Amino acid sequence: MIANKTYFRVSYSDTDQMGFMHHSNYFKYYETARWELFRSIGIPYPEIEKEGIILPVVNASVKFIISAFYDQEITINTQIKSFKGPRIVFEYQGINETGKIINEALVIVACVRKSTGKACLPPKKIKEVIKALLKK
Amino acid sequence: MIANKTYFRVSYSDTDQMGFMHHSNYFKYYETARWELFRSIGIPYPEIEKEGIILPVVNASVKFIISAFYDQEITINTQIKSFKGPRIVFEYQGINETGKIINEALVIVACVRKSTGKACLPPKKIKEVIKALLKK
Amino acid sequence: MIANKTYFRVSYSDTDQMGFMHHSNYFKYYETARWELFRSIGIPYPEIEKEGIILPVVNASVKFIISAFYDQEITINTQIKSFKGPRIVFEYQGINETGKIINEALVIVACVRKSTGKACLPPKKIKEVIKALLKK
Amino acid sequence: MIANKTYFRVSYSDTDQMGFMHHSNYFKYYETARWELFRSIGIPYPEIEKEGIILPVVNASVKFIISAFYDQEITINTQIKSFKGPRIVFEYQGINETGKIINEALVIVACVRKSTGKACLPPKKIKEVIKALLKK
Repeated sequence: MIANKTYFRVSYSDTDQMGFMHHSNYFKYYETARWELFRSIGIPYPEIEKEGIILPVVNASVKFIISAFYDQEITINTQIKSFKGPRIVFEYQGINETGKIINEALVIVACVRKSTGKACLPPKKIKEVIKALLKK
Repeated sequence: MIANKTYFRVSYSDTDQMGFMHHSNYFKYYETARWELFRSIGIPYPEIEKEGIILPVVNASVKFIISAFYDQEITINTQIKSFKGPRIVFEYQGINETGKIINEALVIVACVRKSTGKACLPPKKIKEVIKALLKK
Repeated sequence: MIANKTYFRVSYSDTDQMGFMHHSNYFKYYETARWELFRSIGIPYPEIEKEGIILPVVNASVKFIISAFYDQEITINTQIKSFKGPRIVFEYQGINETGKIINEALVIVACVRKSTGKACLPPKKIKEVIKALLKK
Repeated sequence: MIANKTYFRVSYSDTDQMGFMHHSNYFKYYETARWELFRSIGIPYPEIEKEGIILPVVNASVKFIISAFYDQEITINTQIKSFKGPRIVFEYQGINETGKIINEALVIVACVRKSTGKACLPPKKIKEVIKALLKK
């Protein structure tokens, strides 16, 4: 299992006039969460881009269960679920201060060579690190 | 069928260092698109909020097919797919300047009474307008 | 005088829990407004970047007078005030639906060569177009 | 003197296609920084809003000196410079990982009664705490 916890505090600019965190902002925090997971397993995302590879989102689905409010501290549990060809599947759970699951998400990114814009296999190092850890 | 077309131009602040529109921004344009659809059928969203009802997103799933780039004019085709209890299901297609489908999305919103935070049936006017139009 | 008008409608995601458009969003619309002004005088911003020149903001000052609210149509009056060395000074006025000035801003951008990160003189075409128009 | 340090890491969604953090995002971090300063002196911003007072920005001016890049850790030094009538003046310095000042800003907020939209004097507690600390 490859998992990680990250934390963020809902900022004022994250809210909208409903008084909730605007749903589009979760995707920003999920992104930060997945690269923090990558950092934790020794693959900082900036180094991937230096090798000419980018990892854009190709699929995202989210179930919003409970709203998040200004100034709340939210925990994001991130997990790599699977890894096949150019695609890496991340699973997320958002947890609020009372320990309740506030949302669940699946985000799929694909390795793309920046120079060509075409999908490609991940660099060898990423492949080996993730495969080794997924087996544990 | 209840359908609408809206247009937006990718702004500089929509882009990220990959050189694409950041995926989180689509959710903002989908939101604008659904309330433009509502405006087009005679139900301006601000009037719904004045009655104490909000329509937060409870589910969103998106397939990103082609990236959008700075200054491109994107068309969003929006359609109300179904409507049951407190939930309204919107279907989206993003189309770029060359006519290609760049993404497909499903967004579900739920009617919620702002004072209680509980799901509720939509105001009678919304129900009647949408039901009448869905039959056509 | 080099001036232009652009329009935008305050989107839901622009608002915060005060019920106003969050102040950070004005900078995004000012940016769109200045490149629309550039487009109107025959210098589309994407073409500048293709020549390896970027125009980052080096100075911004804004006086917020009246709040903007969801769904309002805001007019931005943009004007190039001056142009010296690598710097171009833009002046803005935001106007709401009742014709009231809601904010006034000054934004200064500088020509920077992307490859070096150093300030540079604007490409000849920009210089000539702006100088000719400023004299009128 | 009333001063505070806050930290943030430039997120991927903060960047634009220049490869820098988009300038509009600084205003979000300045906002977080001023309410963290308020929290540090015993006045959590959410409690102010509970009393029916909001603190919108009425003036902001920023000098951008050096760009911030993805994944950099930025320090914001925040200071309350003055406090008169409904207005509180905050001064900011952004510092990058190499210790260089990357921007300097002045942001003025005004106390406004939410129910009327009119400027008002700050609640007594805020006034007393800030006045006492400014004298030190």
